Amino acid sequence: SSDSNLIRATLFPGDGIGPEIAESVKQVFRTADVPIEWEEHYVGTEIDPRTQSFLTWESLESVRQNKVGLKGPMATPIGKGHRSLNLTLRKELNLYANVRPCYSLPGYKTKYDDVDLITIRENTEGEYSGLEHQVVRGVVESLKIITRQASLRVAEYAFHYAKTHGRERVSAIHKANIMQKTDGLFLKCCREVAEKYPEIVYEEVVIDNCCMMLVKNPALFDVLVMPNLYGDIISDLCAGLIGGLGLTPSCNIGEGGIALAEAVHGSAPDIAGKNLANPTALLLSSVTMLRHLELHDKADKIQDAILKTIAEGKYRTADLGGKSTTTDFTKAICDHI
Amino acid sequence: SSDSNLIRATLFPGDGIGPEIAESVKQVFRTADVPIEWEEHYVGTEIDPRTQSFLTWESLESVRQNKVGLKGPMATPIGKGHRSLNLTLRKELNLYANVRPCYSLPGYKTKYDDVDLITIRENTEGEYSGLEHQVVRGVVESLKIITRQASLRVAEYAFHYAKTHGRERVSAIHKANIMQKTDGLFLKCCREVAEKYPEIVYEEVVIDNCCMMLVKNPALFDVLVMPNLYGDIISDLCAGLIGGLGLTPSCNIGEGGIALAEAVHGSAPDIAGKNLANPTALLLSSVTMLRHLELHDKADKIQDAILKTIAEGKYRTADLGGKSTTTDFTKAICDHI
Ligand SMILES: CC(C)[C@H](C(=O)O)[C@@H](O)C(=O)O
Ligand SMILES: CC(C)[C@H](C(=O)O)[C@@H](O)C(=O)O
Repeated sequence: SSDSNLIRATLFPGDGIGPEIAESVKQVFRTADVPIEWEEHYVGTEIDPRTQSFLTWESLESVRQNKVGLKGPMATPIGKGHRSLNLTLRKELNLYANVRPCYSLPGYKTKYDDVDLITIRENTEGEYSGLEHQVVRGVVESLKIITRQASLRVAEYAFHYAKTHGRERVSAIHKANIMQKTDGLFLKCCREVAEKYPEIVYEEVVIDNCCMMLVKNPALFDVLVMPNLYGDIISDLCAGLIGGLGLTPSCNIGEGGIALAEAVHGSAPDIAGKNLANPTALLLSSVTMLRHLELHDKADKIQDAILKTIAEGKYRTADLGGKSTTTDFTKAICDHI
Repeated sequence: SSDSNLIRATLFPGDGIGPEIAESVKQVFRTADVPIEWEEHYVGTEIDPRTQSFLTWESLESVRQNKVGLKGPMATPIGKGHRSLNLTLRKELNLYANVRPCYSLPGYKTKYDDVDLITIRENTEGEYSGLEHQVVRGVVESLKIITRQASLRVAEYAFHYAKTHGRERVSAIHKANIMQKTDGLFLKCCREVAEKYPEIVYEEVVIDNCCMMLVKNPALFDVLVMPNLYGDIISDLCAGLIGGLGLTPSCNIGEGGIALAEAVHGSAPDIAGKNLANPTALLLSSVTMLRHLELHDKADKIQDAILKTIAEGKYRTADLGGKSTTTDFTKAICDHI
């Protein structure tokens, strides 16, 4: 019974608290009359008895077809000999750019005011190549791979993003004073792209210095673009400035116009199923998905309702110092819509 | 005319503001009657007309003989085809552990109070191997090397440091969920050493999460030990918490009991020779050198005088919002001794 006026979007609720926070998104979307029909698939490390599989071909195909999706947290087992599902999705769907907006939430005080940063992370190569081996006993090596193609692609995305979102500056983050060839190539590609965007200020900042400046004065930055591992580190640092990963959206951009939005926090197995989880990160991620679909009215409405609910402070989940359940917090948002 | 009661220590003033801040240390040491005789050598990227060389054999031999030294900033030329001098010193002298204490300076306010962290960085391998090459056009790779020997050595240093400095917790920082072999080996070594120190709490924290927690609440950490690049990043982040690299000491520990203390900030060529530089980082580094020599009375006296001068706030250099010259600030410290 599918309505042809509806946009199909894939939903991977994920592990742990994933199903609860996905439920929150569904409810908010229903309340806001968002013309989306969810195609839900189980992808996670808690084996689904129906599929006996972590990630099915159908799940991947669903994103490839719909070109738009939302994913909850998936647990990454350490050292259990199988690859992170997050990584597998990135590789399989060629999710080349990971965009993480990070802004201070009105009314939720941290040490930093008015943070407004966008980190854009190369998402497919670098230190995440998976190429590692033992050279001799007691000596191991990992390969960091940087390609011209992936670097140009993410740089192009970053400058295009800056231009279309009224941003003024793109900072390329690197350690080319040490990794002259790999990070050097990354910078070279950024410079090439920068030349096509004379209206955007371009600068290069060494990663260690960048981290120091971010904690001293985040207002020095605007859009940051960088290789994979630096993006992993800096996007978490930025999230820390405004309160943590429970509050920051993320969206992965893939080849052929795919957008897979995601909550990047953990699956929090300790509170799973207890109606205590904070759905904010997944909700804000769903907003980035709506913007990707150019459903800006719906996006604005939902984003405003989320921010208002947090700002009022009456309904907050435990991680934000409140006492609300996931469902009460969600209801408060729906009431604002 | 060398006095046999004096301890010989090597001094590399370095580039840019290096000579001025080194002069400050010399003056403070004279005032405090520190029984040290400096053996000064030029090492830097500004070629010395006498030697026509960046780093002479004599300079290295001086540190090897004296086993103790102090170095100022040395400029790292990017992509000029020659290796960073900082790196060369680390490799040549086998400076395997870089210790950076980072504590809030009384009276100098930042967003964070009571920071008290020690980062201990593996200083010889990892991403700093220098092994890089182009695979095919547009595809380059860098090798990250982790060895059992270097990992055990730095872990041993970290736990010994924790134990002898009354510290309670050692956190190993890693990304073993992605680099299972390299960071996995690093963690394995840390675990082995941890077992010999049952009185020290041991934990493992993923680097991205560590950065987020550091900006949210640095009090969660105590001593942090990690591979080279993570140490580079996290020590700068920590410095940012208390005001920047102008305020944080650093000491490199090498084989055979070598200790080479250093200011890790840049050479600031823009203000070089203008009597504007802040000598605090080099002064506090010289204090770590004195502690290494077990000259604790002198170390305490000098450290107290530095901290008092900064706390009073009457004499501060421009980077700390004051108007003092390097020499006035130094004189104020000397007056406190
Ligand atoms: C879970 C982990 C594999 C992942 C990463 O390292 O990319 C996470 O930290 C993230 O940022 O999405
Ligand atoms: C200058 C540079 C080579 C050096 C490094 O990367 O180690 C510096 O950042 C440091 O931390 O001492």
